[in-house]
Amino acid sequence: MKDMTQFNDLEVGYDVPALPGMDEADIQTPCLLVDLDALERNVKKMGDYAKGHGMRHRVHGKMHKSVDVAKLQVELGGACGVCCQKVSEAEGVARGGIKDVLVSNQVRDPAKIDRLARMPKLGARTICCVDDVTNVADLSAAATKHGTQIECLVEIDCGAGRCGVTTTPDVVKIAKAIDGANGLKFAGIQAYQGAMQHMDSYEDRKSKIAIAVAMVKDAVDTLRTEGLDCDIVGGGGTGSYYFESNSGVYNELQCGSYAFMDADYGRILDKEGNRIDQGEWENALFLYTSVMSHAKSDKAIVDAGLKTQSVDSGLPFIFGRTDVEYVKCSDEHGVVADPDGVLNVNDKLKLVPGHCDPTCNVHDWYVGVRGGKVATLWPVSARGKAY
Amino acid sequence: MKDMTQFNDLEVGYDVPALPGMDEADIQTPCLLVDLDALERNVKKMGDYAKGHGMRHRVHGKMHKSVDVAKLQVELGGACGVCCQKVSEAEGVARGGIKDVLVSNQVRDPAKIDRLARMPKLGARTICCVDDVTNVADLSAAATKHGTQIECLVEIDCGAGRCGVTTTPDVVKIAKAIDGANGLKFAGIQAYQGAMQHMDSYEDRKSKIAIAVAMVKDAVDTLRTEGLDCDIVGGGGTGSYYFESNSGVYNELQCGSYAFMDADYGRILDKEGNRIDQGEWENALFLYTSVMSHAKSDKAIVDAGLKTQSVDSGLPFIFGRTDVEYVKCSDEHGVVADPDGVLNVNDKLKLVPGHCDPTCNVHDWYVGVRGGKVATLWPVSARGKAY
Repeated sequence: MKDMTQFNDLEVGYDVPALPGMDEADIQTPCLLVDLDALERNVKKMGDYAKGHGMRHRVHGKMHKSVDVAKLQVELGGACGVCCQKVSEAEGVARGGIKDVLVSNQVRDPAKIDRLARMPKLGARTICCVDDVTNVADLSAAATKHGTQIECLVEIDCGAGRCGVTTTPDVVKIAKAIDGANGLKFAGIQAYQGAMQHMDSYEDRKSKIAIAVAMVKDAVDTLRTEGLDCDIVGGGGTGSYYFESNSGVYNELQCGSYAFMDADYGRILDKEGNRIDQGEWENALFLYTSVMSHAKSDKAIVDAGLKTQSVDSGLPFIFGRTDVEYVKCSDEHGVVADPDGVLNVNDKLKLVPGHCDPTCNVHDWYVGVRGGKVATLWPVSARGKAY
Repeated sequence: MKDMTQFNDLEVGYDVPALPGMDEADIQTPCLLVDLDALERNVKKMGDYAKGHGMRHRVHGKMHKSVDVAKLQVELGGACGVCCQKVSEAEGVARGGIKDVLVSNQVRDPAKIDRLARMPKLGARTICCVDDVTNVADLSAAATKHGTQIECLVEIDCGAGRCGVTTTPDVVKIAKAIDGANGLKFAGIQAYQGAMQHMDSYEDRKSKIAIAVAMVKDAVDTLRTEGLDCDIVGGGGTGSYYFESNSGVYNELQCGSYAFMDADYGRILDKEGNRIDQGEWENALFLYTSVMSHAKSDKAIVDAGLKTQSVDSGLPFIFGRTDVEYVKCSDEHGVVADPDGVLNVNDKLKLVPGHCDPTCNVHDWYVGVRGGKVATLWPVSARGKAY
């Protein structure tokens, strides 16, 4: 096996962190590692759960931004399709072969609406969210222009405090406008409670979702009396999917982080009071980093700083280690407290990122590992697709 | 002028946020705007300052990761060269035509050392930092193998608490090892006090730098008695360059953020107690964002969230506005408090990012604007170059 020093700078392989077949120890850091066995177990487990509860699972692609991971979720996890948050992200997923794509967000800019209206030509069912009746005419005009159909969900703000309407009359008004518009199809409700997913306590999360379920149920029931059936009632995340699944109202889950896990999600508690990364889900994503300086005996400096992760939800922890701790993050460096001086320069550590979504978004590659060897490289295909 | 809706998805221009000649209002969001006039004034001002104080200015390329900005800093700002933090970043800068490149960091991994040793073949003077005598042999072997020369600075930790040695005897020991090694040249001292740059008070910053200057002076004087002259004594940032310039010890500045400014730097105070973004430097970098939902009367949701900026140093502020405020950031959304309901869907706002370096690193393009029109697009050429 050629190692990385043997490439010249015009050869393919020079600017990737690893090559298939390589030992884990030879991977260039900092980079993202995916434990493929753990990922597959997570994907299968959530797929089985959804199937067992009569739910469709529209996995959230914004978390990993990878066509390869999305395909695994469809093929192994039985996902019905993918959620994206941006039109450019959704286009990439559709072009990659996913046949059913929801932009779980508002699309308002004229150029973005035009792109969305062309997406069905890529072979994908195309769905978006609406929270303003004035958006309906613009979506309709673009779909009509391109001879396509955009399906629309009315978004309910059921507690996240971002997009979405908050009353059933507003839902009905928008749903009727969609139903009457050329090129559009009313497809149901989007109601993701994003604000409660990270609450530590299971009971706190449960009480927040109860409010959401009541709002959604009222809207769905009222729409039915108006002759408007909801094909999709979508929501649910890694911290709540069991509530939506047992609500009798939702029929589609939209989980993302369960597949990779991260430090912030990992510390929330399940019904029995256990961290969800200690049984419910496995850590499958790691930020691989090397010690690059140990000039002070009690601290090691590693090569993964702010340019390789987002610390909005706290610092990473070091997987499988209690003797050393990642305690500070600057642009290019991490400071690892090493009170007993156990680390050496070029030692490698696996960090569990604080927040997986914005961490994945700064990398070009996932290095898929199995049994201590590099099995595959997957591009973070929608990295930076923010339009 | 063709607008963005008129491109088909295989045309060049489809996946860029703007095209030259376009009105600012037609730019696709979220993206980075650079006010070229403000940037040029900042670059010229710092260049004049350095020249007037007999200092070389080795601008920090890690901030912008752009060959185009670096070239402007050399050509208009008289910079002597560029600092980078990573070997892959430095390679890109050297390949882009910069002739004098310092990796202001340790290089320890064998593959990275090999890449570094090949950099002089790209036509660039190649310098790196050393804080461990055991690194010297590895650097020497690689330079000898490739028939090149690597110049080495000994890094002093003068308060940042990351890489670097802390005593003059350690400096001398490493400098002598470098001086005696084939393929290496002892070039001086690296001593950047990164921990004080963001202290609000001018006097607090001054007292921290006084400690750094004393450490560096002792090392430089001692090296001289040992027959080792320092060609480079480098350090200094946007919050301290006037201290290093008047120290009588430093001869190279390494400022980065002055060129673009950001919210976190902007709020530090100059000698007269004024924010440095109110006279000393201009905001030249903006995260351009659009309102995408206004379903609640008192809050607008914008399309710039955690995937388009780093909030490690706080939230962005909205440039030129006091009536609306960016108050919350999630993966894909920003919440803007709009108590008087003055914003409309598709209105655009210019955010000043909390921290420019890791914000630039998540974007592919700088949209250069002048007089309300798009003048140029510059790639963030070293984006993601973390190796």
